[in-house]
Amino acid sequence: MNEIAWNKLGAYLNETQILGSIQNTLYWDQNTIMPREGASWRADQLTYLAKILHERTSSNVLSDLIISAETELKGSNEVDEVQFKSKMKNIELLKKELDRQSRIDPVLVEHLARAKSRGYESWQQAKENSEYKIFLPYFRELIKLRIEESKQISNKLSPWETLAQPYEPDITKEWLFKIFNPIKEAIPSMLKSTKQVKKDKWDLDNNSQKYLSEKLLDVFGRDKNLVAVAESPHPFSITLGPRDFRVTTRIVKGEPFSSFLATAHEWGHSVYEQGLPSQSHQWFAWPLGQATSMAIHESQSLFWENRIVKSKAFSESFFKFFIEKGCPLKNYEELWKSMNIFKGGLNRVEADELSYGLHILIRTELEIELIEGNLDPEDLPFEWNNMYEKLLGVKPPNDKLGCLQDVHWSEGAFGYFPSYLLGHLISAQITSKLEEDLGLIENLIANQSYKSIIDWLKENVHKYGRSLNSMELVKDVTKLELSPNYFISYLEKKINLLN
Amino acid sequence: MNEIAWNKLGAYLNETQILGSIQNTLYWDQNTIMPREGASWRADQLTYLAKILHERTSSNVLSDLIISAETELKGSNEVDEVQFKSKMKNIELLKKELDRQSRIDPVLVEHLARAKSRGYESWQQAKENSEYKIFLPYFRELIKLRIEESKQISNKLSPWETLAQPYEPDITKEWLFKIFNPIKEAIPSMLKSTKQVKKDKWDLDNNSQKYLSEKLLDVFGRDKNLVAVAESPHPFSITLGPRDFRVTTRIVKGEPFSSFLATAHEWGHSVYEQGLPSQSHQWFAWPLGQATSMAIHESQSLFWENRIVKSKAFSESFFKFFIEKGCPLKNYEELWKSMNIFKGGLNRVEADELSYGLHILIRTELEIELIEGNLDPEDLPFEWNNMYEKLLGVKPPNDKLGCLQDVHWSEGAFGYFPSYLLGHLISAQITSKLEEDLGLIENLIANQSYKSIIDWLKENVHKYGRSLNSMELVKDVTKLELSPNYFISYLEKKINLLN
Repeated sequence: MNEIAWNKLGAYLNETQILGSIQNTLYWDQNTIMPREGASWRADQLTYLAKILHERTSSNVLSDLIISAETELKGSNEVDEVQFKSKMKNIELLKKELDRQSRIDPVLVEHLARAKSRGYESWQQAKENSEYKIFLPYFRELIKLRIEESKQISNKLSPWETLAQPYEPDITKEWLFKIFNPIKEAIPSMLKSTKQVKKDKWDLDNNSQKYLSEKLLDVFGRDKNLVAVAESPHPFSITLGPRDFRVTTRIVKGEPFSSFLATAHEWGHSVYEQGLPSQSHQWFAWPLGQATSMAIHESQSLFWENRIVKSKAFSESFFKFFIEKGCPLKNYEELWKSMNIFKGGLNRVEADELSYGLHILIRTELEIELIEGNLDPEDLPFEWNNMYEKLLGVKPPNDKLGCLQDVHWSEGAFGYFPSYLLGHLISAQITSKLEEDLGLIENLIANQSYKSIIDWLKENVHKYGRSLNSMELVKDVTKLELSPNYFISYLEKKINLLN
Repeated sequence: MNEIAWNKLGAYLNETQILGSIQNTLYWDQNTIMPREGASWRADQLTYLAKILHERTSSNVLSDLIISAETELKGSNEVDEVQFKSKMKNIELLKKELDRQSRIDPVLVEHLARAKSRGYESWQQAKENSEYKIFLPYFRELIKLRIEESKQISNKLSPWETLAQPYEPDITKEWLFKIFNPIKEAIPSMLKSTKQVKKDKWDLDNNSQKYLSEKLLDVFGRDKNLVAVAESPHPFSITLGPRDFRVTTRIVKGEPFSSFLATAHEWGHSVYEQGLPSQSHQWFAWPLGQATSMAIHESQSLFWENRIVKSKAFSESFFKFFIEKGCPLKNYEELWKSMNIFKGGLNRVEADELSYGLHILIRTELEIELIEGNLDPEDLPFEWNNMYEKLLGVKPPNDKLGCLQDVHWSEGAFGYFPSYLLGHLISAQITSKLEEDLGLIENLIANQSYKSIIDWLKENVHKYGRSLNSMELVKDVTKLELSPNYFISYLEKKINLLN
């Protein structure tokens, strides 16, 4: 097959990905080590990159390259139907993204990039001082600009739906609430059914926590030449090159599992990225070489955090390392129970699997209201606190522990939050299939079969990249549509075990 | 004054500096935390940036902008002669740099960027395995390309002189050896005159070393919101934005002062960068806002490392912290003497002030031979080892401790090494003036007057940026041409004190 146009398109996408990965590198640096005073220049750098990236992803040059590649492909003697189809899928996704980018005014792109940097910076200050008002003017501006963006992009989807597409392609509010409502109904009574475990205060020093997180990654099979680790105020995972993966964690005073669990979570994200296809037209620079959605991404991170690390078998295998570092718990059952206290709290990241869904439901509802113009940003703390009191039975004593706790909105990310809860549901449904194929998770953990688990996930989930969207992928793996029932039934079993 | 053309040029330079600082950020990341497998993609990123940076710094657009700004400035009613002169200096430096960049073939720029990345990568491997042969083919290629570059740039200067200009503007071999020869003659007999101190083996654990380095920076007045610190295989200092400074250090087993002294050294570099002018046409993005030469840069780093930290007064003030961390030395005199053992050794970075010059002389002579075609890269280890035996009386047992010890050549940096020794000379000469103005260094240290020292350096050295070249600056501060005598006499006094 003559692939002249195809290769030209590939070279163009490669350069775009070079710039995109540079942007990621600046983001990584900003969040792990950049001194605070660097923020303003960093914003200039990111704004500049956002501008030239938008030029590249919305250009007529790209449009012509896509059309030429498509024409060439259709006229070629490509006889392998699978190859042909997957190449056409690349073209389809590129066209969709080009269409989206072309609709956005370049001036808005620059304004947005700057507003995101300012938002993040003011959020950091606001959080430190627990003073929502510091953040408010920047947040208001960010919301205004993102609403404008959504209107430039689409008049078919609602503003929130439009902004959520990059995280979860094809998502609608209607579909989302159909999936979420059973969860919203089920959790509160389940929360009441859990027996309260008294949580004795204890902690581990920073070095011990670092040691345990390193140990965890060792056991999971982290290759140090491939995956670097650092600390950041908000843990994240990011890919900086086809063979350059990064994860962060953070140490929270008084929360001895926080860093450990965050490490497991971010590891899950990274394993997904490491398992993405990386050959030819499914490469890093092509759509097919990328993660299909943030819900799938979160299903992978939540799997490692909850199904692996919060399991009883894992506590049994890891208890010795905790003891080595001075953990005062008596036995592995205590360790397991300490990592699984089901109780409504203020903090999403530190929340248990059961109440976690409520944290997401609150954020999802609030961000829809904010973006669709039904909630003035000024009223966010009040509404936030109200909903926490109503759904979780706790009232944030200040904004730091309340509506300022998460980084997402400060960077203009609206539409991301549902991915976490969708991720829980997807993880539960996919894990049921994994257990059918490989046997019970608890046994796999007891046998330290992490490599088998990773291989299975790669083969059944990761390797598809964007060739299937998230719902197609779930159906492909489990032969069923996504349902909240797997997650609910998993939680019920776990509560029984714990009680 | 109507500054339309001037501001247009400023905006262009600003974008160039955004890209340049992004390049620096990638370099920082590569050397501090990037996992090894990331190297190949990082090379792609750096090659891409080198290409577009070269386009920008050699473009007709830039040429036109410079000419317009110059015409505007000359026709303006700028009455402040100092302002006028310094703006004209910017124009002069921009023209010179444009001329240099325009002569280099863009294809060569790409090849060079790639060869530098490969050189660095293969050097790391070669060093780890102490196997020069791993590095040799990449080194050979790098030398070939840099010779080609030098020929494209200039037929007036020799190849080595041409490559050395960006580090030390206006340097010639003749001038250099006139300055260096008295040093080459003086050091060997001085080395013989030092009394040998027996060096007992001791070490500090990593955390203690980190603590001492942090303490050092605290005492010097580091602002954590401005200066970030990390570890890297080869310590360096780098500026990533007008208010974003980074320094690294490294911990060497069995060398309890190594990390501490590297921190002081890199701090000196950073203080210089922090003190550069930052207003208007002397800003970060303009030539005048930049460091004037690497010799001046090294004079600043060597000042903090040697004149401050290796002084007796400093040992007296810092001994308590060493004791706190389990240092077995009896008193501060012992600490001081341990930091000042004058003895020929294999390693440049760990070398004392006296033998240091010989390490530089060896490298300077060898790199001139390599670049001017008189030494085949294959023969480097042999020549290196020979010269070490002859001048320093030690023979490297392997290439890791020999010609592979430094990073510079692996990144294609030829012409940098003399800056270190020139820096020693400049530091000595400038310090004599500093002592005239502020009193003896030992007293300043005893009184913890680091702020006065920094203020003096800023006022007399840093704030000039590139408005004076290094030799003009030395003359401006000390009223005399650069001479090796200050350094030689400083060393003689120190040897007397130690003996």
